[in-house]
Amino acid sequence: PANKKLLILPGDGIGPEVMREVRRIIDWMDRRRSVTFEIEEGLVGGAALDATGSPCPDETVAAARRADAVLFGSVGGPRWDSLPFDRRPELGILRLRKDLQLFANLRPAVVLDALIDASALRPDLVRGLDIMIVRETTGGIYFGEPRGIHLNEQGRRVGVDTEIYSEDEIARVARVAFDLARKRRNKVTSVEKANVMQSGRLWRAVVGEIGKAEYPDVELEHMYADNCAMQLASRPKQFDVVLGGNLFGDVLSDLAAALTGSLGMLPSATIGALQADGRRTALYEPIHGSAPDIAGKGVANPSAQILSFAMLLRLSFGMDEDAALIEQAVEKVLGGGLRTADIMAPGMARVGTSVMGEAVLREL
Amino acid sequence: PANKKLLILPGDGIGPEVMREVRRIIDWMDRRRSVTFEIEEGLVGGAALDATGSPCPDETVAAARRADAVLFGSVGGPRWDSLPFDRRPELGILRLRKDLQLFANLRPAVVLDALIDASALRPDLVRGLDIMIVRETTGGIYFGEPRGIHLNEQGRRVGVDTEIYSEDEIARVARVAFDLARKRRNKVTSVEKANVMQSGRLWRAVVGEIGKAEYPDVELEHMYADNCAMQLASRPKQFDVVLGGNLFGDVLSDLAAALTGSLGMLPSATIGALQADGRRTALYEPIHGSAPDIAGKGVANPSAQILSFAMLLRLSFGMDEDAALIEQAVEKVLGGGLRTADIMAPGMARVGTSVMGEAVLREL
Ligand SMILES: CC(C)[C@H](C(=O)O)[C@@H](O)C(=O)O
Ligand SMILES: CC(C)[C@H](C(=O)O)[C@@H](O)C(=O)O
Repeated sequence: PANKKLLILPGDGIGPEVMREVRRIIDWMDRRRSVTFEIEEGLVGGAALDATGSPCPDETVAAARRADAVLFGSVGGPRWDSLPFDRRPELGILRLRKDLQLFANLRPAVVLDALIDASALRPDLVRGLDIMIVRETTGGIYFGEPRGIHLNEQGRRVGVDTEIYSEDEIARVARVAFDLARKRRNKVTSVEKANVMQSGRLWRAVVGEIGKAEYPDVELEHMYADNCAMQLASRPKQFDVVLGGNLFGDVLSDLAAALTGSLGMLPSATIGALQADGRRTALYEPIHGSAPDIAGKGVANPSAQILSFAMLLRLSFGMDEDAALIEQAVEKVLGGGLRTADIMAPGMARVGTSVMGEAVLREL
Repeated sequence: PANKKLLILPGDGIGPEVMREVRRIIDWMDRRRSVTFEIEEGLVGGAALDATGSPCPDETVAAARRADAVLFGSVGGPRWDSLPFDRRPELGILRLRKDLQLFANLRPAVVLDALIDASALRPDLVRGLDIMIVRETTGGIYFGEPRGIHLNEQGRRVGVDTEIYSEDEIARVARVAFDLARKRRNKVTSVEKANVMQSGRLWRAVVGEIGKAEYPDVELEHMYADNCAMQLASRPKQFDVVLGGNLFGDVLSDLAAALTGSLGMLPSATIGALQADGRRTALYEPIHGSAPDIAGKGVANPSAQILSFAMLLRLSFGMDEDAALIEQAVEKVLGGGLRTADIMAPGMARVGTSVMGEAVLREL
């Protein structure tokens, strides 16, 4: 797009400090590559709760609607842990997903050669690992009604959630997965528990239908979620794109990320549905959380936030070249031996957030 | 108990062939240790479907009720894959769980020194690993109503499942986990998604209450399921007993098993509720499935079935000494260098099902 409207939501914990390093890259792009963004900054999570009483104020949702893309930090922390269910910082991201219909979460799990020793897996099993988990994020058990805690006839507490998926919800996220596979290694593994869940049966049927009718050229495999967890933990390289609902996608994408051993490096994108006005928003965020234990100490790894910005450039603005420049700069910094604490290894130089960000800038 | 009533359900695929090796051990116990079991054999899964039209005939349920313990093989296979939902072989195990109220599935994930190289994880991360996953198996989303696939007003298909847990269901499985922890390293990690699920909120509350009131001496930690998957895949030794509902327990127990790299070695137990007649049944089964690809070839690893029998001796009959004898025999066979195909490693001797079973007998 001609004008690139960006909403920046630093959030809580290490969010603001890693976001600062992205701002430096944005400044550099402005100066050196004459790319100017129209930037707004907003409140979300605990920061928004403190300032406005809501973890996701209406202004933030409105700003997100105006924006072409949202760069999100992270939310939550012990300060807000004892708040009632409807005022948790997490509602910040949940409301954004729902209100903007950000339905397809893209979670790459990539092992860079420089960081192969960070993985808990044997090097031969993860060398060159490059898989993409696609997780549905606006439906399923996170949002289904009825839900709640009530008392039964015996006066005992009962907790209820509803897993619900329509064929349209399944089809649209399946298409995202198939489209991605076509640009990658042409394989989709669709995950559910069709053997015990009705939503899983429908999931398997619809993904199969879409695959057959619209993507006959893409290899499609169906796998039970329990088996997929096993396969990820033993032979992860068999996968290309893994597609799952909100719940299984949540667990399996975190599992895949953990296999890389470098959570501090991994970005994510959540793609929105086409809005009534013909626009489509997307939200980009590192997969690491707000890490309250190290917040404010200047030791957090800014790479995942920086790479989330690169993903934003590529997917929302089609700026493949700039995205690649940034990704290569991060890789070069690692190749040069700099490491933040989370990925520190013997023989490397341990640095903090701003030195890491600085080094990326220098490579640029 | 004075008379030890055992129901044996070999099931499908490799079930019958690995069960044969257990029968040899039972014969040996009869001859050499004067332990006599009262044995019935029954039909379950595809075998039962073929013979009776039902994956879990009433006779099998009745026999399980009569028995003090059930030794289960495995069910399922491509022959029955296209059957309608209500005639799948899996219903065999699901109905037994529900009808006998087998509510607490105990899944040890253990790495034997002899098999440390089978793990996908670096040896230092899994050396001596010994964790126990406790999974609730009669409630949650596997059984909750309403469930089904229906058409909405637009004529589109919608799939629905209901996750539902009462505080009593949560409390009884929590007590199993706490009791186990007391005999182990005194720590329980309770897993849910209390940040997005109402049943998860109740789960966290109830487990916390039971822990505080009845097990103040046991360390209790609450963890989100996504984070638990991450932690298992990166630092598994931090865990002792992991407690989860039916769905999370399913995925996480399979993940933990996969981390050991030796699925063919892992047994499991599912403990039943106290029945009206004061008895309590339990079912024991290897965690591997029916493995139709290698069924009938005589190459399957009988160890998990044999170790399931050892678990049965210990938990249902209090025969700790006999259980330990069998477990040590299996370990010695591995130490001696014999390996079935699933755990084959360079320099070891590859053997089939019956040679492996024979070797265990010889050690006994
Ligand atoms: C913050 C939380 C609600 C969220 C989720 O479970 O979806 C997080 O775990 C994630 O994966 O993005
Ligand atoms: C066979 C199937 C219904 C079962 C389950 O999902 O519970 C299996 O995966 C298991 O874990 O025992």
